Amino acid sequence: MIVNCVLCHPENENVIWKNEKLRVIQVHDHNFPGYFRVIWNEHVAEMSDLSEKDQQLLLWVLLIVEKVVREQMKPDKMNWAQFGNMVPHLHWHLIARYQDDSHFPESIWGPKQREVSDSRLQQLHTLAQHTAEQLAVVLQGLS
Amino acid sequence: MIVNCVLCHPENENVIWKNEKLRVIQVHDHNFPGYFRVIWNEHVAEMSDLSEKDQQLLLWVLLIVEKVVREQMKPDKMNWAQFGNMVPHLHWHLIARYQDDSHFPESIWGPKQREVSDSRLQQLHTLAQHTAEQLAVVLQGLS
Repeated sequence: MIVNCVLCHPENENVIWKNEKLRVIQVHDHNFPGYFRVIWNEHVAEMSDLSEKDQQLLLWVLLIVEKVVREQMKPDKMNWAQFGNMVPHLHWHLIARYQDDSHFPESIWGPKQREVSDSRLQQLHTLAQHTAEQLAVVLQGLS
Repeated sequence: MIVNCVLCHPENENVIWKNEKLRVIQVHDHNFPGYFRVIWNEHVAEMSDLSEKDQQLLLWVLLIVEKVVREQMKPDKMNWAQFGNMVPHLHWHLIARYQDDSHFPESIWGPKQREVSDSRLQQLHTLAQHTAEQLAVVLQGLS
């Protein structure tokens, strides 16, 4: 554990499921409902720092998140990203993207493309909450 | 193959290595030397559209690219991303990032942070070219 790492010492994470290796959290982003993060518990920086077995486990969990989000939220595209430039502690962003979201087809880190109505966002946030609940059930069933 | 998909009908790709399933290309981006893309040959959109065997193959190749880039270029961080919002044909971006690059710690799709000298970029482009050559050797040795 690194003293000043915010992922070694998390605060206010909405943890959907965790085991001794990793955790899945729901990210509350106003503009992007259907945003989940998979965080490796140990402080490692890169995918290639993990053992092969741990790489497989991480991919397996990422794919479960993708499958449940796709089934429940029917996004136009799933986005995956692993940067860690600000916090060099391995974590993955998985984001459901829609053609009418605020940034599509840009990445969520790119320039905003449009305004989205409150009603559309509310509809998707309700769906994302249901998805997080389903994801917890699926992950608990597998562990 | 989809008629109007630029990844089904590539032009001017700098292919480092390919097999029947996928290809690794070097991306020539002025600001980001050490930028490689791993493209699935078949037109599928999402990771979870692949068979488990194909998912493993893709992860294996991504990790080889990461390892060679880390060994050769000693980046401060590796960035991985799979979006496909503009071209919904599965492809991964792997990018060597440095604390003094133009966008760090933002993603390369985020706002620019600083100017980088031509001499620094030239140094990294030379290193990236050598890395691409090494990567070709490693991948050919494994296939």
